[in-house]
Amino acid sequence: MSPSQTPTSSSRFHTVAIIGKYGAAGIEQSLSDIADFLTRSGHEVVFEAETARNVSFANVRAMTPQEIGLHADVAIVVGGDGTMLGIARQLAPYHVPLIGINQGRLGFMTDIPQDGMIPVLADMLAGKLESENRSLLESSVVRDGAAIFEALAFNDVVVTRGATTGMAELKVEVDGRFMYNQRSDGLIVSTPTGSTAYALSAGGPLLHPSLGGLVLVPIAPHSLSNRPIVVPDTSTIVIEVMGGRDINANFDMQAFTSLQHHDRIVVRRSAHTITFLHPAGWSYYHTLREKLHWHEYPSAEGRLK
Amino acid sequence: MSPSQTPTSSSRFHTVAIIGKYGAAGIEQSLSDIADFLTRSGHEVVFEAETARNVSFANVRAMTPQEIGLHADVAIVVGGDGTMLGIARQLAPYHVPLIGINQGRLGFMTDIPQDGMIPVLADMLAGKLESENRSLLESSVVRDGAAIFEALAFNDVVVTRGATTGMAELKVEVDGRFMYNQRSDGLIVSTPTGSTAYALSAGGPLLHPSLGGLVLVPIAPHSLSNRPIVVPDTSTIVIEVMGGRDINANFDMQAFTSLQHHDRIVVRRSAHTITFLHPAGWSYYHTLREKLHWHEYPSAEGRLK
Amino acid sequence: MSPSQTPTSSSRFHTVAIIGKYGAAGIEQSLSDIADFLTRSGHEVVFEAETARNVSFANVRAMTPQEIGLHADVAIVVGGDGTMLGIARQLAPYHVPLIGINQGRLGFMTDIPQDGMIPVLADMLAGKLESENRSLLESSVVRDGAAIFEALAFNDVVVTRGATTGMAELKVEVDGRFMYNQRSDGLIVSTPTGSTAYALSAGGPLLHPSLGGLVLVPIAPHSLSNRPIVVPDTSTIVIEVMGGRDINANFDMQAFTSLQHHDRIVVRRSAHTITFLHPAGWSYYHTLREKLHWHEYPSAEGRLK
Amino acid sequence: MSPSQTPTSSSRFHTVAIIGKYGAAGIEQSLSDIADFLTRSGHEVVFEAETARNVSFANVRAMTPQEIGLHADVAIVVGGDGTMLGIARQLAPYHVPLIGINQGRLGFMTDIPQDGMIPVLADMLAGKLESENRSLLESSVVRDGAAIFEALAFNDVVVTRGATTGMAELKVEVDGRFMYNQRSDGLIVSTPTGSTAYALSAGGPLLHPSLGGLVLVPIAPHSLSNRPIVVPDTSTIVIEVMGGRDINANFDMQAFTSLQHHDRIVVRRSAHTITFLHPAGWSYYHTLREKLHWHEYPSAEGRLK
Repeated sequence: MSPSQTPTSSSRFHTVAIIGKYGAAGIEQSLSDIADFLTRSGHEVVFEAETARNVSFANVRAMTPQEIGLHADVAIVVGGDGTMLGIARQLAPYHVPLIGINQGRLGFMTDIPQDGMIPVLADMLAGKLESENRSLLESSVVRDGAAIFEALAFNDVVVTRGATTGMAELKVEVDGRFMYNQRSDGLIVSTPTGSTAYALSAGGPLLHPSLGGLVLVPIAPHSLSNRPIVVPDTSTIVIEVMGGRDINANFDMQAFTSLQHHDRIVVRRSAHTITFLHPAGWSYYHTLREKLHWHEYPSAEGRLK
Repeated sequence: MSPSQTPTSSSRFHTVAIIGKYGAAGIEQSLSDIADFLTRSGHEVVFEAETARNVSFANVRAMTPQEIGLHADVAIVVGGDGTMLGIARQLAPYHVPLIGINQGRLGFMTDIPQDGMIPVLADMLAGKLESENRSLLESSVVRDGAAIFEALAFNDVVVTRGATTGMAELKVEVDGRFMYNQRSDGLIVSTPTGSTAYALSAGGPLLHPSLGGLVLVPIAPHSLSNRPIVVPDTSTIVIEVMGGRDINANFDMQAFTSLQHHDRIVVRRSAHTITFLHPAGWSYYHTLREKLHWHEYPSAEGRLK
Repeated sequence: MSPSQTPTSSSRFHTVAIIGKYGAAGIEQSLSDIADFLTRSGHEVVFEAETARNVSFANVRAMTPQEIGLHADVAIVVGGDGTMLGIARQLAPYHVPLIGINQGRLGFMTDIPQDGMIPVLADMLAGKLESENRSLLESSVVRDGAAIFEALAFNDVVVTRGATTGMAELKVEVDGRFMYNQRSDGLIVSTPTGSTAYALSAGGPLLHPSLGGLVLVPIAPHSLSNRPIVVPDTSTIVIEVMGGRDINANFDMQAFTSLQHHDRIVVRRSAHTITFLHPAGWSYYHTLREKLHWHEYPSAEGRLK
Repeated sequence: MSPSQTPTSSSRFHTVAIIGKYGAAGIEQSLSDIADFLTRSGHEVVFEAETARNVSFANVRAMTPQEIGLHADVAIVVGGDGTMLGIARQLAPYHVPLIGINQGRLGFMTDIPQDGMIPVLADMLAGKLESENRSLLESSVVRDGAAIFEALAFNDVVVTRGATTGMAELKVEVDGRFMYNQRSDGLIVSTPTGSTAYALSAGGPLLHPSLGGLVLVPIAPHSLSNRPIVVPDTSTIVIEVMGGRDINANFDMQAFTSLQHHDRIVVRRSAHTITFLHPAGWSYYHTLREKLHWHEYPSAEGRLK
């Protein structure tokens, strides 16, 4: 190799995209450090367009999420789980695996701490990694037989009442079978990924990411026996709005706000999946222990002997 | 007593007000039966004004709730718990005890079935009864130091997020002591009466009506350890809106919808109480058993041996 | 065919075994009715040996559960879910499908009411049916590297503390990955079938029978964030006893009572499955609605508008 | 005052008792530091007898808990909540207030950290303190009309099934009124103090210490609507054993193991109370926030905006 040649990475990850949380304090240094490391190691580096606009360093090659989807071999996301969620939905059709680096405290998805990230990235790009697939939901709002809204969701689809009214009345069918008419604040249909988010707050179980299941979690249901129920992720779930005012649907963070009675929200697993890459030795349970404080919390000394 | 004299009730309940659920099917016959019985037994009968407008029988003496409050010795409410809730708030300042008759299935408050109600009423008006006091909440919305809204609540005061947004962030103080900053769908402050309503759906405990306590029940809280907490009903609870969009407050069924950040919802026990009258031998636990199906529900035969 | 010949059933269910709950009042008439119907329809009828001993009618052909497993094409179980549970475990290795008839109120598994059962059975044996597979657990207690106890479980494997002591301390590994050290009254590992039994009482979610998952439900865990977790049913779960006195393991209703510290309870899905047959049009959700009173329960009228 | 005179404390706390967790590592130095400080400040110092036997320093004046009850003006407890629980029950009849110092991490009751304890104690003994009363339960086991066991409980009275059996069947009466027949793993009757211990693990609410209430928390109840219920602490609660094997009762940490069917466990508030002393400015909510990690826990970033 002559001195003038750029080293070429032998990694399967030739082109690496970098996505940063827009406007996060101190993020520029991290992005710069990652880009420098990647360039030095012979990777092609591209920045997501919005991220590129927010950094001050020169010679940045910018790509839209769609271009990243077509051209990148891996995407490194710096931010929190929300940042990851947003880009994951956009990259879902393209099979680009994602690596998550957390600026603040560890996320469920952004599980590599910023401190000491470079050697971790080096190992991962050299192939020392674990790969994991996460499912997504594709959902539509159907009115009078026609889909009037469509969206992907990575965490959950939530049908919920407006703030000033009584309960929502929702009719739920799974694979064409009537499940129940539920009166509640709303209903969450969550992927395993979403099972650590809103669904957990509403009383749902944790679902291991490799489980082929979705969980339906009612929010403050009128009937105490309307418990969370886990169904195979091959199921088609239809939620029909039967009653209540100002009912709306949320697909991760995108809201559809003008639901009418007898609108049907159809939810099924997307044909797309998201691939997360983790450092070798990664364990989902380790993340749970960290995030849920399983070792620290809480004390009930009266019971301890 | 000359033959032409109407019999005069020796009951402590001279003047009896009748309130009916407006527009409920078949209610007119019940109201008529009760009025006939009362007149025959020598009671003075008055109808709540709105109820009076909805019945077709003649010679009805109508009174506003306020007049009922000033003049009636007891009020008989025919309808469901919602009907009872509405009139109870209006009569709260006047010490008129309430008797609840349920048209449909038994309510928590309207606990006398319509079928066979007359002999039950006869016994009660003759003094064979149990009396029970329920507390109310008085609540205000304070902005920049001034109360801009005031309301009574019999069930609960609920501060909750708008439908399309993320979490509410609420700062809670009790008796001037900081309790926590809570992120959730909202927070319910419930009386014992309300503990069988929304608070129960959101995971709260049952509170016996004679308990001097209020319960704070978070709705889908971000922190799994934000459990319901029961405080003495002498407490002053202040909920300050710290974050979230479209936050609003509900006082039983009355909504205050335009809360701003740093608005403070102040909740304390009202000086007023509501008195419910029940047939002799009445037991709160009987009502719980009936309403919560404690004897029927559900089967888990695999455990039975 | 001459008039004297018995009709031969063209059904795929040539030999039908009958199993009844031992000693249940009034069961003999049901068993007799079923046997008569089957014989008349040209089926070969055999009785499980213990059931045969408890009936008084003559000419009964008796078989052990193992013989039933080898020779019967279908088994009809009359009793409750407990009866079904017991015979299902015994027939698990033999691929004999099961039909459940409930003497009393509907069970989760014994879902055909005794009243009117004959026409239902006639339709089912003629092929108008739905077939459904349920998974089982195979479990062993391993001490010093050797399995000292083995059992099948259809509902759940439960490791629990003794009655007079403090908490159990259990270390859980899934597929060789450390999950957590849990302090609690115990831990339930439940199949979808068991998710409506003890696991439900302890706060677990419902699992649809066709979900490829198992749920771990802690009983009164010390840590409030030790929530139920659903894992793929391809997982191997190891529970090691780390602390607590009088810890024992229960496999459905079979107890292993003398666990020592560092004993390991290994749980995985059995290679066997149980096939349940249901009438055509059967829906699991219908059973849930019936058993969990989803339409009746409970009223919180204050919220209804 | 001549130089040889010992200073005499003007504090209302003339005689101070010291109780230490037996055998805790490093506790002797703490006890010695406290004793030195107290002596220097003119207090009379006594050691609880068992504590005295475990320390090596000389000239220790030892007293039984009963003598402490009769002679001490305040007791300082060094250890965890379990230590506090044990001594509190013994001192309950004597009105000696308690100060709790925690060696390890903060307890619910032992809320003064060992580090920096001396100035805190100095302030408290000088009167800069908050005083708080906690209620206790007095409980008896009644067989054939006669009390065969009696105990005080500071946290809870728990009636629970044996480890290898099915459910307990318990009939509950409150103030002579039938509440329900409950089938479950057991039932907890908890004081506000105990509401952060076992009752919390089993799904009960937090009760503020100044609430005049007790909470009944079922453990894994068969009926999903058997929710925790809070009753006034003036109630007499009777739990009758109706079914189940190896049922026993636990009073804090004391077990009564040989319950028979129809034994009745009677629970009521004791006439005694415990007084805890806290540093000025103490807040119960501060303790809850610390112990329940209300500010840290857990992240569900997907919902954060």
